Amino acid sequence: MAEFIFPLRVYIEDTDMMGVVYHANYFNYFARARSEWAEQTGFGIDWQNAQEIYFPVHSAKIEYLKPALLHQCVEVVSQIKETRRASLVYDQYLRPAGLNDTILCKAEIKIACVGKDLRPRALPDIFTRETQRDY
Amino acid sequence: MAEFIFPLRVYIEDTDMMGVVYHANYFNYFARARSEWAEQTGFGIDWQNAQEIYFPVHSAKIEYLKPALLHQCVEVVSQIKETRRASLVYDQYLRPAGLNDTILCKAEIKIACVGKDLRPRALPDIFTRETQRDY
Amino acid sequence: MAEFIFPLRVYIEDTDMMGVVYHANYFNYFARARSEWAEQTGFGIDWQNAQEIYFPVHSAKIEYLKPALLHQCVEVVSQIKETRRASLVYDQYLRPAGLNDTILCKAEIKIACVGKDLRPRALPDIFTRETQRDY
Amino acid sequence: MAEFIFPLRVYIEDTDMMGVVYHANYFNYFARARSEWAEQTGFGIDWQNAQEIYFPVHSAKIEYLKPALLHQCVEVVSQIKETRRASLVYDQYLRPAGLNDTILCKAEIKIACVGKDLRPRALPDIFTRETQRDY
Repeated sequence: MAEFIFPLRVYIEDTDMMGVVYHANYFNYFARARSEWAEQTGFGIDWQNAQEIYFPVHSAKIEYLKPALLHQCVEVVSQIKETRRASLVYDQYLRPAGLNDTILCKAEIKIACVGKDLRPRALPDIFTRETQRDY
Repeated sequence: MAEFIFPLRVYIEDTDMMGVVYHANYFNYFARARSEWAEQTGFGIDWQNAQEIYFPVHSAKIEYLKPALLHQCVEVVSQIKETRRASLVYDQYLRPAGLNDTILCKAEIKIACVGKDLRPRALPDIFTRETQRDY
Repeated sequence: MAEFIFPLRVYIEDTDMMGVVYHANYFNYFARARSEWAEQTGFGIDWQNAQEIYFPVHSAKIEYLKPALLHQCVEVVSQIKETRRASLVYDQYLRPAGLNDTILCKAEIKIACVGKDLRPRALPDIFTRETQRDY
Repeated sequence: MAEFIFPLRVYIEDTDMMGVVYHANYFNYFARARSEWAEQTGFGIDWQNAQEIYFPVHSAKIEYLKPALLHQCVEVVSQIKETRRASLVYDQYLRPAGLNDTILCKAEIKIACVGKDLRPRALPDIFTRETQRDY
């Protein structure tokens, strides 16, 4: 899968009393990017509801390298690193908009594929095929 | 209805880059107090699910008087001001713990009573009776 | 002041267990729109820091008319309704993207103008002039 | 360091459209527990401001095992696992209140010790001594 780039701006709600993005909120940024990617590739919420497939976060590793600042324009860079039977792993990082060589925060996020009962479910073939394709 | 007092502490997640509670987050404090009051009076989430009754916010007025500070111990004071057929109005305010004469933020919050279809539903008699009782 | 239109999408972080945007989070949407407007008109965070002027929310009225749904594309429409000596009042509402005649949520939000000490400060002339201008 | 137990309840603001706690919000729970522990052991915000020492999150690993449910009473169990020169590592997990053998979510969270300039600073001896003591 090619990199998916999702731009956003840091707003007041995201900051804490240090004037920088609060550590928990980077997870929101990464989740927005995954949702936007899903919407744009046809695996968005309508597809998920039709298939009764959901993608909760299974586990994550995160490293905070430099703080993102109030009103800074940043972008999330996302890539699916690995697709298994009923899970997938994303590599995601945040960088200042247009600055390719600076990483503010990076994470490896494992997503489970579950049904309505929250039990593991195999990823549909079409999902695996599409996400392994370069485009 | 007597006043219901709900204590809490301000944490980093609640603050913004000014070092004080971000304005939207006072609504979380007020909602926590209403939920806690509902749980303690028997109208909590289990009762709501059994009755298929839900209580979304219909409208609100809020005034920010003094900022609540990081790690400050505060309390939400809540009172049901009015009960109508399918709605109720709360008066709620936030004060520093134990300081009766200081108001940090106050709100009037109108709650709708709706069914699963999100359409208005009459408040059950038992709810109206209990909430009009002084205790 | 002409209307300022700010597009956004509803993400999972914004929703609650009812599958719709949690009432407190509409305040985040409105605040993002005000910040974006400020950045685009030259009154953004750099100007504010240089002037040592800040714009905390003073008070608000809000009405929730229809729920905004997960992954819905929406837009905040903002207008400065009134400019006083040390405060201003915004009319803001949220609508589905491109649907001019549907209002999901509307608010009147009064903003104070304060200095670093959090005490009222007159709005700079340039701010008042610019925001009363139609463009 | 002995275990520090911090009780809390899940509120609507914490849940997402799946009716369970949104993955990013567990970080808030863990941070509240660390803050509360700091306040109760004398290393709270007043001490931090006096020393000009701050404790941003450096990195984290988290595993989501079972969802925490709306209005569930839960508790965060925290322990300092390791103290280095300018950082410390917490082991933290969330369990249903009073259920010792169920883990909902667990995390290893590395905290940096920094000065006002956000550069690394050695942990004060008194902090290291106290946190390595069993009590």
